[in-house]
Amino acid sequence: MSRIYLDHNATTPLRAEARAAMIAAMDVVGNPSSVHAEGRAAKALVEKARAQVATAFGADGADVVFTSGSTEGAGLALAGRDLAGSGVEHDAVRAWTHESLSVNSAGRVSVLDPASSTLQMANSETGIVQDLPEGLAVTDATQAFGKLPVAFNWCGAQMALISAHKLGGPKGIGALVLRRGTELAAQIRGGGQEMGRRSGTENIIGIAGFGAAAEAAVRDLASGAWDRVEEFRNILEEALEAGANETIFVGKDARRLPNTSCFATPGWKGETQVMQMDLAGFAISAGSACSSGKVRASAVLTAMGYDEAVASSAVRVSLGPETTEQDVLRFSEAWLNKEKKYRARAA
Amino acid sequence: MSRIYLDHNATTPLRAEARAAMIAAMDVVGNPSSVHAEGRAAKALVEKARAQVATAFGADGADVVFTSGSTEGAGLALAGRDLAGSGVEHDAVRAWTHESLSVNSAGRVSVLDPASSTLQMANSETGIVQDLPEGLAVTDATQAFGKLPVAFNWCGAQMALISAHKLGGPKGIGALVLRRGTELAAQIRGGGQEMGRRSGTENIIGIAGFGAAAEAAVRDLASGAWDRVEEFRNILEEALEAGANETIFVGKDARRLPNTSCFATPGWKGETQVMQMDLAGFAISAGSACSSGKVRASAVLTAMGYDEAVASSAVRVSLGPETTEQDVLRFSEAWLNKEKKYRARAA
Repeated sequence: MSRIYLDHNATTPLRAEARAAMIAAMDVVGNPSSVHAEGRAAKALVEKARAQVATAFGADGADVVFTSGSTEGAGLALAGRDLAGSGVEHDAVRAWTHESLSVNSAGRVSVLDPASSTLQMANSETGIVQDLPEGLAVTDATQAFGKLPVAFNWCGAQMALISAHKLGGPKGIGALVLRRGTELAAQIRGGGQEMGRRSGTENIIGIAGFGAAAEAAVRDLASGAWDRVEEFRNILEEALEAGANETIFVGKDARRLPNTSCFATPGWKGETQVMQMDLAGFAISAGSACSSGKVRASAVLTAMGYDEAVASSAVRVSLGPETTEQDVLRFSEAWLNKEKKYRARAA
Repeated sequence: MSRIYLDHNATTPLRAEARAAMIAAMDVVGNPSSVHAEGRAAKALVEKARAQVATAFGADGADVVFTSGSTEGAGLALAGRDLAGSGVEHDAVRAWTHESLSVNSAGRVSVLDPASSTLQMANSETGIVQDLPEGLAVTDATQAFGKLPVAFNWCGAQMALISAHKLGGPKGIGALVLRRGTELAAQIRGGGQEMGRRSGTENIIGIAGFGAAAEAAVRDLASGAWDRVEEFRNILEEALEAGANETIFVGKDARRLPNTSCFATPGWKGETQVMQMDLAGFAISAGSACSSGKVRASAVLTAMGYDEAVASSAVRVSLGPETTEQDVLRFSEAWLNKEKKYRARAA
C-alpha cells in the first residue's frame, strides 16, 4: 500500500508547473548581473517570476525581494528592530522579537501597537487565522499564502514573509514583500542584487519554480480546490471525534486554514503518535517540522494556555490539494486503531 | 552562428550530473527536519550531498554548512569579526572587512596576522592565485574550487567559502566549510538546521545539484580537463598579443586560474568591449558580474596599482571545460577586428 502524505504544512510535493519551470530554467546559462545576452535572459527569468509572485500574492506595485526562504526573510524584516511578537509565531520570527503580545485560549493574539509588532496570518500547527491590524509592521504569511485568498496590498501590513515550498514550489526560496518605499537595511551584503536589499547571485532555478508554483497555487485556490480540502479535513475530524472521546481538537471553533487539523490526546505523546503513524504508512507531525526533530511540548499550544499534558500530546495533520477522501478515511481508521490500543495500555 | 559563452567565472552552465541529481531530488517530498520516512529521505539526500562536497573539497572531517551561496557564507564567516582584508577580495567579502592588507603590482597580498585576516584563493577577475598562510581565519575559495586541485584540510585556513554555480552546479547554493570545533554564531536563526549554524528549510534540490556538480568537477579536474582549458587560454592570449600591441595582460606572469584571461586596452572602455563582443556573439565581462551591472573601474586592478585608464578598460574572458580551440580562435578574430576599429577611431 502506498504511503499517504499528510504533512503539507511542513512542506509540499513539487507541483508539475514548478517542475516544468525549473527544468526550463536549467538551460538558462547566464548570471542575472551580467550585461550580455545570457545575463539578460537570466535577469528576464527572475523578473518574470517576481511579477508572477507579486500578482499571486496581491502585491502589484510592492517590492518582492527574493530570499532563501521565510527564515532568512524573518531576519531581514526583523533583525535589530525589537518588534513585539507572541508565543505562537514560528521560531524563525521568535528569534528576533520580544514576546509581549498576549494569546487567548482560542489562539487569538492581541496587538497593542501594530507599527511595532509582528503577527502571523495563520499558524503552522493549529491553522488558526489572525485578523491583521492596519499598520502592522510585519506579517508571516508563509502558511496562509496559497491556502487562503490573501492579498498583500489589502492585508494592512508593511512587510510580509512568504515561502515557495509551502505552496508546491521548491524548498530554499521565498520572498520578503514590502510596500514600495519601505527602508530596509540588507543583512546579506555584497554585489547589491535585489535592489540592494539582498546580495548574492540569484537562485534562478528556484525562483522560476516559485513563480510558477505561486501562479498555479492561486489558480487552484480560485477554482475551489481548497473547499474540497476543507471538506475532507472536516470529514477527518468528524471521524476521529466519533471514535476518540478524550481527544481535544485545537482551534476547531476558530477561523482556520482549510487543510489543518491539530488534535491532542492527553497522555499519548505526539512524537509517539507520529512514529506509530509513520510505521502505518502516514506522514504527520508533532509541532512544527522546522524545530529540527526536537521532542518537546508544542510552544504554540503552551502559549494558548494548554498544559504540558495536552501540549506534548498534540499532532498535526495537514492536507494538500492532492489529498483524497479515501486518504483521510484510511488515516482515521489507522489512527483510531492505535488510539484504542493506547487506551487499552493506559487503562 | 551559435553564441560562445566565455564568462565562466561569472557563472557556469549546469552540468549534466547536477541536472540529473536535481531532477531526481524533485521527487523527494519531505522536509529534512521531519521525523517520518519522507523527512528522513530528504535528510539522507542532504547528507549524501554534504559528503560529496566534503570529499570533493578535501574537507573530510570538517563541517560543511550549506548556505545560499558564497555571499551569504561571507556574512556568516565574517560579520562582526572585523578581519583584515584587501582590495582584491570580492564585494561580498569586502562588505565585512577592513582593508589593511597590501597588494603588490603582481596582485599578491601580504598577510601580517593570518588569524585575523581573510584572503581569497584565486581572484575572479584576474585569476591570480594566492599562497595562503597557515592559520588564516577565512579563505574565499569560490573561484578556485573546481578549477584548481585544492584541499580544505591542507589549505591552512580555518574556514572557506565555496559556491555551486562556479563549478557547474546551480545558482543559489553554496557552503561555508569549517574545521570541526570552530565556534560560529548563526546569522540566519530559527529552527536550528545545519547544526544550529544556519536555520531555514534546506534547498534540497539545489543541495543535490551541488553535491553532484562538486563530485563531477573534481573528477574532470583529475582527468586533466583543465590542462586543455589552460592550453586554449594560452592560445587565446598569444593570438590577442600578436595582434594588439597596446593591450596589457594582467597577471600573465603570476600563478593564475587555468581558464582566466584579463586584459586591458587603455582608452577602450571595458563595458564598451563587453557590449561590442555581445553583439558579435560572445559573452565576456568587465570586472565581476556580481557587481550588478555597475559601470566603473575594476576595484581589483585599482588595488594592484593600475591607473584609472587601465582599470576601466579591462575585460575578463573565462573559459570552461566545454570551451573549444575553435571558440577561442573565433573570439580572438572578432575581438582583434573590433580593436582595429577602435584604434582607427581613436587615431
